[in-house]
Amino acid sequence: MSFLEALNWRYATKRMNGHTVPQEKLDTILEAARLAPSSYGLQPYSVAVVSDAALRNKIRGLAVPQPQVTEGSHLLVFATWTTIDEASVERFIEHVASERDLPLSSLAGYTDAIKSTLRKYPTQVEREHWASKQAYIALGMALAAAATEHVDATPMEGFSPEALDELLDLKAQGLRSVVVMAIGERDESNDSMTSLKKVRWPKESFITHT
Amino acid sequence: MSFLEALNWRYATKRMNGHTVPQEKLDTILEAARLAPSSYGLQPYSVAVVSDAALRNKIRGLAVPQPQVTEGSHLLVFATWTTIDEASVERFIEHVASERDLPLSSLAGYTDAIKSTLRKYPTQVEREHWASKQAYIALGMALAAAATEHVDATPMEGFSPEALDELLDLKAQGLRSVVVMAIGERDESNDSMTSLKKVRWPKESFITHT
Repeated sequence: MSFLEALNWRYATKRMNGHTVPQEKLDTILEAARLAPSSYGLQPYSVAVVSDAALRNKIRGLAVPQPQVTEGSHLLVFATWTTIDEASVERFIEHVASERDLPLSSLAGYTDAIKSTLRKYPTQVEREHWASKQAYIALGMALAAAATEHVDATPMEGFSPEALDELLDLKAQGLRSVVVMAIGERDESNDSMTSLKKVRWPKESFITHT
Repeated sequence: MSFLEALNWRYATKRMNGHTVPQEKLDTILEAARLAPSSYGLQPYSVAVVSDAALRNKIRGLAVPQPQVTEGSHLLVFATWTTIDEASVERFIEHVASERDLPLSSLAGYTDAIKSTLRKYPTQVEREHWASKQAYIALGMALAAAATEHVDATPMEGFSPEALDELLDLKAQGLRSVVVMAIGERDESNDSMTSLKKVRWPKESFITHT
């Protein structure tokens, strides 16, 4: 299956059949999210994977009122850092220096560039928006990986971040949920979306050429 | 090359060698962007593809001060709709009804759900943020497609949206640039990033399991 065939195969699955996504496929999806690019490589987000059935049951009842949460096998919660400040940048640069075996001083320009970008987003809300957008790139990569692995996946925004953060104790970890993705296997007999044509804006209006 | 190998191969290319990305590969990248999922499938964004060398030269000088703009062969500009209102929702629902050959009345619940989400984002700024996030999923898909096609790509946020919108006359089209992506071929002799280890947060801190 080519990459485009995989993207055509996927759809936002509404009903799943309870089958468990194999560990190897889950690992591939998570690794795709981890490898996703982000502004300056900062990756101001992480992914909480919920497989525990009782916890997913609670999540469905209190935070994400969608059947895929329990009919899928895992819920991936993309969560951004609640604090993104100069200290976060310095921790990141130390990580880069260590990984690339470089002296910190050689990364001074890089450090300044990130700090200067942060100053363009002075408020917490602006930084959250910026971090969310980066997390959505990772969401795109994870959805693409799921499709290539023939794993059904549904991205969802319609949930209560407050309730989900509470259930997963994200605040204490300095995190805030921004988007979730259920993975599992489509239930063709119950999902009316399965047979529907995929609708996208036509190339002619979606793309312009200069 | 597996999908993860492709994601490991890619990096935010800093210098490109002027080679032209073949039309077929460009088409695959654009189709991946078009097939990307978005909230309710609304796709409140489009992609402007700039190949004209003189225009890219101007863009590099006035809006996106990065060498990849001219050393690559195409600049993909992801631009969100400046107006997202109930009329946009109705146009979208008409498109869905037509594509799926369904009566409009059967989509009343769907229509209401989107309108109700819009009411949660009453200001223009909130709607722009929401639309931008959707565009970033498409950016993720386009970057993934480029990697699978062995095309180098660099996503960039550090540009002047006002200057770029002006140069591409986006405002008149009801669009606003949010992120750009240059595509081309890495210049291994001039790009010091080529040999550097890819740095990501380790699995242990990036992913939590429950």
